[in-house]
This record gives sequence, C-alpha cells and structure tokens, in this order.
Amino acid sequence: VLGREYPDETCSISRSLEIVGERWTMLILRDALLGLSAFEEFRESLGIATNVLTARLKLLCGEGLLVRVHDGEASQRSHYLLTEKGREMGPVLFALMKWGDRHYPTQHGAPRLTLHAGCGGEVVQSLHCLACGERVTLEGLDLPLAPAFAHQPAD
Amino acid sequence: VLGREYPDETCSISRSLEIVGERWTMLILRDALLGLSAFEEFRESLGIATNVLTARLKLLCGEGLLVRVHDGEASQRSHYLLTEKGREMGPVLFALMKWGDRHYPTQHGAPRLTLHAGCGGEVVQSLHCLACGERVTLEGLDLPLAPAFAHQPAD
Repeated sequence: VLGREYPDETCSISRSLEIVGERWTMLILRDALLGLSAFEEFRESLGIATNVLTARLKLLCGEGLLVRVHDGEASQRSHYLLTEKGREMGPVLFALMKWGDRHYPTQHGAPRLTLHAGCGGEVVQSLHCLACGERVTLEGLDLPLAPAFAHQPAD
Repeated sequence: VLGREYPDETCSISRSLEIVGERWTMLILRDALLGLSAFEEFRESLGIATNVLTARLKLLCGEGLLVRVHDGEASQRSHYLLTEKGREMGPVLFALMKWGDRHYPTQHGAPRLTLHAGCGGEVVQSLHCLACGERVTLEGLDLPLAPAFAHQPAD
C-alpha cells in the first residue's frame, strides 16, 4: 500500500502499518467508530482535502475495513460503514487515545471519557493471561518467535 | 511535529499521532520494546536510511519516549533506552500486532507469541469496567465528551 516492501515483513505490526500506518487513515477510522459515515461528515470533521479523503476511503474499502453502502436508487449519496475488521481497530485507537490523554492532555484534560454503557463506570484496557487469569504488565510479557519462525529463515 | 496543525486538535488520538503517527517511529518503538537499543541495531533491523533513523531517534528523545545514554568517556557509542512514556506505547503496539496477526497473517501464521512470563499462558488484551469489573466490548463503550468540552467551544 505504501508502495514499497519493508524488510521485517514477517512482523504483524509492520504489516498492520502498511494498511493503517498513516495519520488520516487512523483518523477516518476514529470518526467511523464515533459514528460518522457520510463523505461530507468525514470531510468536515477532518478538514481533509477531497481527493485525499477519496483515496483513503478507497483504500479502507479495498482492504475491507469499511464497506460503501449506496443510499438507494434515487440518491447518489453513499455511506461508509465499518466492517468487523474495521471495528477490530478499536483497541488500537483506544490505546492511542489513552496514551494521548496521559502524555498530551489539553489544558482542560482528556477530551473524552471512556464509560461502560452498562453501569457508567470507567473503562480501562489491560493485558491478562488466559491460563491463570492474572493481569499482565509489559515486564511480564514474553514475545518469543512462533515455532515456525524460530527454526527457519523468515520468508 | 508533522509541521502543520490539525483541525481536531482536542482529540487525544490526533495528538498522539502527531508524535507517533509515522511508520518508522512505530517500528523503532517496537524494536526498543523487543530489546534493541544501539543505533546500529535499529538500522540493521529496520533497513532504514541513517539520516532518517537519526531524525526519528532525535524526535523520540526530544518527546521523551527514549533517552540517549552514552556508554562512557572511552566510547563514542550510545544507547537509546525506553522511558516510562515510551514503554506506555506498549498497549498500542500490542493491539496493532494482534490486528495484523488476525488480518494479515503470514503463510506460517503469527510470527510471535504473546505469553505470560509467569505461567506460559497466552496473553490477551481487553477492555473492562473499573466499577463493575465486567469485560466491555466496543458496543458497550460510551465515549462522551468530558464536561469541560461538552459545554464550551473546543480550544
């Protein structure tokens, strides 16, 4: 997508960033998660040039993060809706938001709250172990190469 | 950092992306979280041009995600170590890795495992509510503007 190959191509972070590693792409996904869907809504929210927005929406549709839905035969308008793949970028954007809230707050603090629709409590993101159930910190996280990668050259 | 202002400047995602919203920057942080610290280590891992790597490391040091440590008076070498602020990008990279594992796997599957150093179990990332303790899905997440932003124009 970015028009070149990257050396550590077996890395999933690298592969993800080939698709979403561009500021506008992330911000379009943010807006879609917040409920925007019309071309004009994205354009006004982002202050983005029309041709750039068109290109990014095309990329996101082509990669299956958004799907373009026509409003009907009588209308030339269409909406861009998140697919499950697109919605699964939610944890990435949640983590970016919390990091920004913490390290680059506005003078009025964090712009948005993250609340549980069920009870109104504060929602946080964490790592935990599926086997023992413990919460895991980065220090307690091992990232070994998978067996298929540890015993043969990367493809 | 990217040399311009963005319209939705009150958004923490947007603010974060002004610092880390660039592919190489994310990949340097990934390598640092995996334990690399020397200039040559980053250069070899990333296949990045020396001048680009120098610029990105300078940015990351300037913003306080990395700190440059000289190896001693007898050496001209130095290492780049993650600060707490830099380490706190871990959840962003974890989420990007899992999204890439799921949607852009290699022919051999996910390159790295995420294991609990304590018991060897699989580590996953999730959202949960601090009040009721429930796991929260994106559908159960409310993102209202904070009071300071709901009642006055964004600055």
